[in-house]
Amino acid sequence: MNTMKENDTIAALCTPAGKSALAVIRVSGPKALTITGMLFPSLKLTKLKTHTLHFGLLKDGKQVVDEAVVSLFRSPKSFTGEDVAEISCHGSPYIVNKVMDLLLKNGARTAKPGEFTMRAFANGKFNLIQAEAIGDLIASETETAHTIALKQMRGGFSGDLKNMRQKLIDFASLLELELDFSEEDVQFANRKDLTVQLKMMCMQINALLQSFRLGNVLKNGVSAVIAGRPNAGKSTLLNALLNEQRAIVSDIAGTTRDSIESTLVIDGIAFRLTDTAGIRETTDKLEQLGVERTMRNIKNADIIIYLFDAKATTPKEADDDMRKLVSALLPAGLKPEVKSNLNEEAGEGIVPVIPVANKIDLLPAKPLLGGKTIAVSAKSGKGIEMLKRRLSETVLNGKQIEENTILTNSRHVEALQAALASLYKALEGLETNSTGELIASDLRSAMNSIGEITGEITTDDLLQNIFGRFCIGK
Amino acid sequence: MNTMKENDTIAALCTPAGKSALAVIRVSGPKALTITGMLFPSLKLTKLKTHTLHFGLLKDGKQVVDEAVVSLFRSPKSFTGEDVAEISCHGSPYIVNKVMDLLLKNGARTAKPGEFTMRAFANGKFNLIQAEAIGDLIASETETAHTIALKQMRGGFSGDLKNMRQKLIDFASLLELELDFSEEDVQFANRKDLTVQLKMMCMQINALLQSFRLGNVLKNGVSAVIAGRPNAGKSTLLNALLNEQRAIVSDIAGTTRDSIESTLVIDGIAFRLTDTAGIRETTDKLEQLGVERTMRNIKNADIIIYLFDAKATTPKEADDDMRKLVSALLPAGLKPEVKSNLNEEAGEGIVPVIPVANKIDLLPAKPLLGGKTIAVSAKSGKGIEMLKRRLSETVLNGKQIEENTILTNSRHVEALQAALASLYKALEGLETNSTGELIASDLRSAMNSIGEITGEITTDDLLQNIFGRFCIGK
Repeated sequence: MNTMKENDTIAALCTPAGKSALAVIRVSGPKALTITGMLFPSLKLTKLKTHTLHFGLLKDGKQVVDEAVVSLFRSPKSFTGEDVAEISCHGSPYIVNKVMDLLLKNGARTAKPGEFTMRAFANGKFNLIQAEAIGDLIASETETAHTIALKQMRGGFSGDLKNMRQKLIDFASLLELELDFSEEDVQFANRKDLTVQLKMMCMQINALLQSFRLGNVLKNGVSAVIAGRPNAGKSTLLNALLNEQRAIVSDIAGTTRDSIESTLVIDGIAFRLTDTAGIRETTDKLEQLGVERTMRNIKNADIIIYLFDAKATTPKEADDDMRKLVSALLPAGLKPEVKSNLNEEAGEGIVPVIPVANKIDLLPAKPLLGGKTIAVSAKSGKGIEMLKRRLSETVLNGKQIEENTILTNSRHVEALQAALASLYKALEGLETNSTGELIASDLRSAMNSIGEITGEITTDDLLQNIFGRFCIGK
Repeated sequence: MNTMKENDTIAALCTPAGKSALAVIRVSGPKALTITGMLFPSLKLTKLKTHTLHFGLLKDGKQVVDEAVVSLFRSPKSFTGEDVAEISCHGSPYIVNKVMDLLLKNGARTAKPGEFTMRAFANGKFNLIQAEAIGDLIASETETAHTIALKQMRGGFSGDLKNMRQKLIDFASLLELELDFSEEDVQFANRKDLTVQLKMMCMQINALLQSFRLGNVLKNGVSAVIAGRPNAGKSTLLNALLNEQRAIVSDIAGTTRDSIESTLVIDGIAFRLTDTAGIRETTDKLEQLGVERTMRNIKNADIIIYLFDAKATTPKEADDDMRKLVSALLPAGLKPEVKSNLNEEAGEGIVPVIPVANKIDLLPAKPLLGGKTIAVSAKSGKGIEMLKRRLSETVLNGKQIEENTILTNSRHVEALQAALASLYKALEGLETNSTGELIASDLRSAMNSIGEITGEITTDDLLQNIFGRFCIGK
C-alpha cells in the first residue's frame, strides 16, 4: 500500500476559498513544524509544546506577509496522527496563495483531496467507515443526515462489524484446525451451532442492507414531484407546503413552465419538492416542452404527489389519470400499481403516489374520496399538515430512525452483499456436508468483505476511490 | 461613545461560508470562555491556560454535535483584547448554524460587521488606520496592494501623524499659555518659528495627499480600455497582453460585441483591461449597442490604449481619430489634450491615452510613427513588453512606491484636507498678526482632524461608518 507509506509533508487550505476574517492552512507530516517554522523566524516552533497557540509575523525572507497565529499539534495527538501546524492568517486569497507558495518552496507539497483524512486512517486514528463519515458530516444539510454521519464518525456500526469479523475468524480457524487432524476425523466446529450462528449473522446483515434505502433517503433527500392536470393548483400547493410564495400562481392554466424545486424538511427528512407544468394535450410549443420536462421529473421522482381539482374532477377520473400517469412510468407489460410507501419490497420502477384532492373549500359538501386520498385546500392551508405527515410516513413506513444501524454508503452495501453471498455459500456447504476447508474459505471471503468496510482490508484503488472524493484540505 | 462600552459577549463565523474541512467560529467578550465552555462540558475551559488548544466533544445537552478543537486566548493577549475562544469545527453549514444557535442560546449575541476589530480598537490593540488596513489587507489582490495594507496595519504613517499632532498640541498650549499672561504681553511661541514649522507640516500633508491618486490606483487597480476602429486587432492585443486566449478573435470586423474584462498585473499594479467593440458608424443594431457600450467604458477608463491598424491607417488618421475620441469624453469647450501619464496635475476628465500601431509585421518597412506611439504585432507578440512597460510608467510616472507614505483611504484624504485648511487658516492668522487665541483654535482644529485619522478623536457615527463596512466575523 504505497498510498499509506508516503511520509512527506503536505499542506492545504482547510477553509473555503474567498475573502473573510480568517483562513486556516494545515501542514502535516514529519517536517510540518520545521517547514512552518521557516515562515515564522521569530518563533522556535520545533521547540514548542503540543496544543499551544503562537502569534507571530509570517515572513517571506525579510518581508512581512501577515500577522498570524500558529496552532501546534505534535504526533500522535493530532488529526492526522502526524506533527501538524495550522496557520490561521487573514482570509485574503492573496495571502493564502503566498503562504502556500512559501510552504511549497520550503519543502511541503500540496495535499491531495482527502489526504489529511487518509493519513489519519493510515495512522489508525479511525477506520474507513469513520473516515467516510467525515465527508458525509460536512455535506449534511438536515439534522437527521448530520446525526447519522456523526454517529458513524464516532464508531457507528463498526463495533457490530468487528464482532462479526471476529466470529468469522474464530469459525474459520476452528475449521482449519480440523485439517491438521484430518486423519483423525475430528470436528472442532459443531456444524449445527455454526449453521445457527451464520444464519443469525445473515439476518443481521440483511437488516443492515434493508436500512440502506431509508439511509440513502435520509442522507440525500427525497425527490417529491407535484403532478396533475393544468390548474389543479400545484404551484399553490407548493407555496402552501413551503409556507412562502416560491412559485408564481395565477388562475390561468399553464402558468408554470419551468420546473421549480425547493427543499422542505419534515421530521428531519429533506424533501426536494418539484412543482411541474400541468399535464394535458396542448399545441402550445412552450407548454409542450413543459409537459415533457414534467414527465422527465416524474420518472426521476421518489414520491409523486398527484393533485387534482376536486371541483372539476371526480375521484374516479382522478384515479384513472393517476393510473395512466403511473403506467406511463412502468416498463411495458407491468400492471400499474399505486404503492403507498417507499419500502424496499416495492417492485423496480414503482413509485409511491399520494393522491391529493385540492380546492375542497369550494365544494358544497365534504367529498367522497378514496381512503388514501388527502383532502386539502392549498389556498387556505387546510389539510396541508396531514399531507406533510403522509409524506414523512411514506418514507419512514413506520420505522424509527435508529441511527446506529442505518446504512448510508453504497460501498458498504456492496461489501455487505458480497459478505452475504459468501455466507450463503458457506451455509450451503454446511447443508451439503462440504469439507471444512471449503467452508472456511467462504468464511474467509465473508470476513474480507466485511474487513473492506472498516478498512482492515484495503487496496490502493479502494483508498484512492474513497479519499479522491473528498475536497482538498480535508 | 456607546459603541465602545458594550461588554457583552459576541460570536460569529470568521471563515467563508460553504462546505470545507474546517470552519472557525470566534467568541469574544467577558463570558467567552463560560459560554463556549457550556458547549464543551468535558473541558473545563474557564480553568485552562491562555494560548492552548483543546480537542473536545461539542454537545447540545446530551447530544453530540461535532468533534472540535477550541483555541483559548485570555485577555489581554487576544485579537480583541478580551477573552476569546475560537471553535474550529467541521466545515458544514449545518454544524456552523447549530454552533451559532447554541452560543446565542447560552448568552452570546451575533457580532456586527467589524465588531471584533472595533473591540480591538477600543481596547487599544491598534489605532483606526491599522483597523482599516485589516479590511484592505483581506481585499488585497496584488502584491503592492497587500504590501501597502500590511505596512499600514503594522503602523504605517501613524507615527508621522502622531508626531504632527504632538507638535500641534505643543504649539497650541504655548499660545494658550500666553493668554494667562495676557496682561504682560509676552510671547512664549516664537511667531517666525511657528510659521516655518507649520509650513513644513503643510508640505508634509500635501505630499501625503498627492500620494493618494497613486495609492488609490495601487489599491483598487487601473481601468485600461483598449479602443479603436473595427478590426484593428483589439481582441488579439488583449490576448497577447494576457498571454492567453481570453477573447474570441476573427478577421471579421465587429466580432467583439460584449466588453470583455480581464486583470493583468504589471509591476504590482492591477490593470483591469477591457476589450471593446470597434468604433465605427454602423446600422447593425447589435453592433450599435456595442459601440455605445464602448463609449461608456471609455468614459470610465483611467487609461485608454488606442489601437490602430498600421497597414490600413496612417499615423495622421489615427491621431485624428484619437483626438476625436478624447474630445468626445471632454466637457464641451475643452481642447482635446492627450496626456501621457496618470499624474495629479492632469485636468479633470483628461485621461492618458497610449497610441499603439498594430500589425507592423505586415508592413514592408518600419513605419514612421509619432514619438509616443508604440509599434506592436499583437499576433506575434512583438512590442507587447514595451506596451506593458508603458502602462506601468503611465501609472507610476517615475515615482517609486514608497509604501510607508502612500495614502489609500479616502477618509484619510478628507481628514488631511480638513487639517490642511485649518493650518492654512492658522498661517493666515500668523501673517495678519491675529491673536494667539484664534491661532491656537485653528491649530486645535487641525489636531482634531489628524486625531480622527488615527482614532484619538472618534464619534459613534465615524466608528459605525468604518466598521460597518467590514464583513461579519472580522
